[in-house]
Amino acid sequence: MQQFVKRIDHIALVVEDIDKALEFWQDGLGMKPSHMEEVPGEGSLVAFLPAKESEVELVSPTSENSGVARYLKKRGPGMHHICLEVYDIEATMAHLKGKGVRLINEKPEIGTGGKKIAFIHPESTNGVLVELYELSGQELQIRIAKARELAERVLTEGQLRAAAAMDFLRNLRNGNGEKEKN
Amino acid sequence: MQQFVKRIDHIALVVEDIDKALEFWQDGLGMKPSHMEEVPGEGSLVAFLPAKESEVELVSPTSENSGVARYLKKRGPGMHHICLEVYDIEATMAHLKGKGVRLINEKPEIGTGGKKIAFIHPESTNGVLVELYELSGQELQIRIAKARELAERVLTEGQLRAAAAMDFLRNLRNGNGEKEKN
Repeated sequence: MQQFVKRIDHIALVVEDIDKALEFWQDGLGMKPSHMEEVPGEGSLVAFLPAKESEVELVSPTSENSGVARYLKKRGPGMHHICLEVYDIEATMAHLKGKGVRLINEKPEIGTGGKKIAFIHPESTNGVLVELYELSGQELQIRIAKARELAERVLTEGQLRAAAAMDFLRNLRNGNGEKEKN
Repeated sequence: MQQFVKRIDHIALVVEDIDKALEFWQDGLGMKPSHMEEVPGEGSLVAFLPAKESEVELVSPTSENSGVARYLKKRGPGMHHICLEVYDIEATMAHLKGKGVRLINEKPEIGTGGKKIAFIHPESTNGVLVELYELSGQELQIRIAKARELAERVLTEGQLRAAAAMDFLRNLRNGNGEKEKN
């Protein structure tokens, strides 16, 4: 059986007002937003609250005509969707289609920072809106650059330790090894 | 600001029928249940599907009078609650209480395997049922025993490497260091 899911990326919660919601999530539980962002195309404001390798996403409307505002009027605040990070979004979508699962997006959409996303219809998931997400494009490059920066720092430390080890061995060879212990 | 939350432990989804739900989660997404369990006290069957360090929990009713069955009749299938693992459940609850948050449980309940759990009222969380969970009791001991077993295996490997390193140093001291390279 092929594993398509890497991890749970986030759980999205629809709220009336993000500041008000942060009274619980931040002041109550100590979960601090890593970033907040207005999404003008969707008439919404979002805040991401990391908890180890997953996040809680708060979504609130910025206009009365937005989908989020309509959702709130119809259903009230609460859980909106689960986002799963997958290894390969195209392969996952093709496999799901083969199983008769109804997809909202026929092809992955390109989101902020170049990431690929697609939604699965709640009809095929027992009423749960599921988002698929693949780390890719610009976002991947940014992360790789950060990882490289970190690797270079670690390498430098590693080189320093290697140099110290070489000194130690040189001392041993010259019969000064015992001195090191004093 | 104190951090109370360690990670997202699980997201619980209420479904009519676990086998049917697994057609999507297992056959579609490749998420395999780590274990399934009947909870007779709650008239429910649960299945846990791990995704890295969090899980999707599927809950279905086993009797018509259960809370899960009533929930399904009223709301239909969908997301039920989020469970957050906290460092210290009593401290978290006391802090939330001080912030005026309404708790469903006044004191943590002791769940299966000795773990401590408590629910927060959706009234204080913008309509989201939030479960707090602290790893403790018997469950903690089982995990410690497993970690010790692993540590002992690693230690043995470490000891073997240390012995090899000592041999190498001894050879160096005896002036045989260069031989090692040939």
